[in-house]
Amino acid sequence: MCRKDGGFLKENIFSESHKILFYETDRTKKTTIGMLVNILMLASQDQSIQLGLTEEKLNERGYGWVITQHVLKVERLPIFGENIKICTKADSYNRYFCYRDFWIEDEEGKIIVKMHSIFVLMDHKKRKIARLLPEFIEPYESEYTNKIERVADPKGDPKSRLVSEKNYRVRFMDIDSNQHVNNVHYFDWMIDGLTEEFLLTHTLAEMNIKYKREVHYGEMVNSETRMAENQLVTYHLIKAGEEESCYACCTWRSK
Amino acid sequence: MCRKDGGFLKENIFSESHKILFYETDRTKKTTIGMLVNILMLASQDQSIQLGLTEEKLNERGYGWVITQHVLKVERLPIFGENIKICTKADSYNRYFCYRDFWIEDEEGKIIVKMHSIFVLMDHKKRKIARLLPEFIEPYESEYTNKIERVADPKGDPKSRLVSEKNYRVRFMDIDSNQHVNNVHYFDWMIDGLTEEFLLTHTLAEMNIKYKREVHYGEMVNSETRMAENQLVTYHLIKAGEEESCYACCTWRSK
Repeated sequence: MCRKDGGFLKENIFSESHKILFYETDRTKKTTIGMLVNILMLASQDQSIQLGLTEEKLNERGYGWVITQHVLKVERLPIFGENIKICTKADSYNRYFCYRDFWIEDEEGKIIVKMHSIFVLMDHKKRKIARLLPEFIEPYESEYTNKIERVADPKGDPKSRLVSEKNYRVRFMDIDSNQHVNNVHYFDWMIDGLTEEFLLTHTLAEMNIKYKREVHYGEMVNSETRMAENQLVTYHLIKAGEEESCYACCTWRSK
Repeated sequence: MCRKDGGFLKENIFSESHKILFYETDRTKKTTIGMLVNILMLASQDQSIQLGLTEEKLNERGYGWVITQHVLKVERLPIFGENIKICTKADSYNRYFCYRDFWIEDEEGKIIVKMHSIFVLMDHKKRKIARLLPEFIEPYESEYTNKIERVADPKGDPKSRLVSEKNYRVRFMDIDSNQHVNNVHYFDWMIDGLTEEFLLTHTLAEMNIKYKREVHYGEMVNSETRMAENQLVTYHLIKAGEEESCYACCTWRSK
């Protein structure tokens, strides 16, 4: 059963099993960061399907969920062939923001990955953030709060050293059935800024990623990678033209 | 139960269930071709694991399986959320080649995808194809034949029209836990040569892909796409420098 940090089993925790497939891993046999986030998102997607609140249903009403931030904490990455349990809980919400927790338990029930995410509801017609509608939020049984969480902003440090700048084109197959560029690509564009040597000698401990503007089919994106003086913090910025699309800060552990 | 084209259930058929995940699909909600091949390969990988003949075990002995050709026939592509059964059967082998069938059944037991693949055993030390070793082949219970199959060569037609030429770099995360560039990337490099309009109005019927030489981390590859006069056959060539890495021929259906 899914327990949140050793707490009580809560009614509104949704969980499912998943076995790590070879195409979710890289040559270290661990999941790539983008695939890890995809795997975590399976739980919220399947919870929504179970509650009858599919993305399609929201779209028909003129709305859609948009993620504005993920804060990922990695004790260790799941490895090829491992059986994991993916858990999620819609934690709380205020007028505009939903806060959701995700976590992964290994076969011993140990939490190896946590993610805290912020969702907003987009009004597709008005093309702006909508006030949360009770019918889209109540079935998840999360708590209303009038507080707005203060989640750290992963803005880059201007004193950091520029490591690389690379360009990518958003391709047809980069957009998944949710009609958005799949997470894998944002994370791959960021992680690809680091060298093979760095990636073989470090493992991700934390990642804070903030989404500002979606990128679309055919757009060229630029990925800028910077590194802090201590060599264990990296800053990543994805731009489409002059517009910031998303940015992230990663903290790494030496292997 | 898995039946091959309505035939008898054979002892050496291995099958497993799989649910199509959002990150295995594109915006048409269908699996991408690369992910489809990954999904099919799950069955042969899991059969090998079940028989104790893991890739690791082969590597320890100085060997590894290498795929030289896939012939894919698609009745329809699996869609997001669909529950499918992936089946495989090691069909026959001769001194150097193994012939394996894969297929996917939908929930009604209808075969929607078939793939016929050729595997060879690579001697890592000698860096050449090895004679098949009985201990690596007998557990699959396939039949010995002294015939070499004549599988069509998907070579391009020089009279076809050049559609595009694009370059890609092999990135760190493109190599999966099998230590090879994951299928998704070869197929994405090929399919990305076609336009959005073509991909939205056509669906793959057949694909014949032949692998000549593996590409490695850091290499730049060039993907050339050509189209036959009838607009329903495309030819794809991946080169690393002047060397041919793989080539394919796709037959499409208008939607």
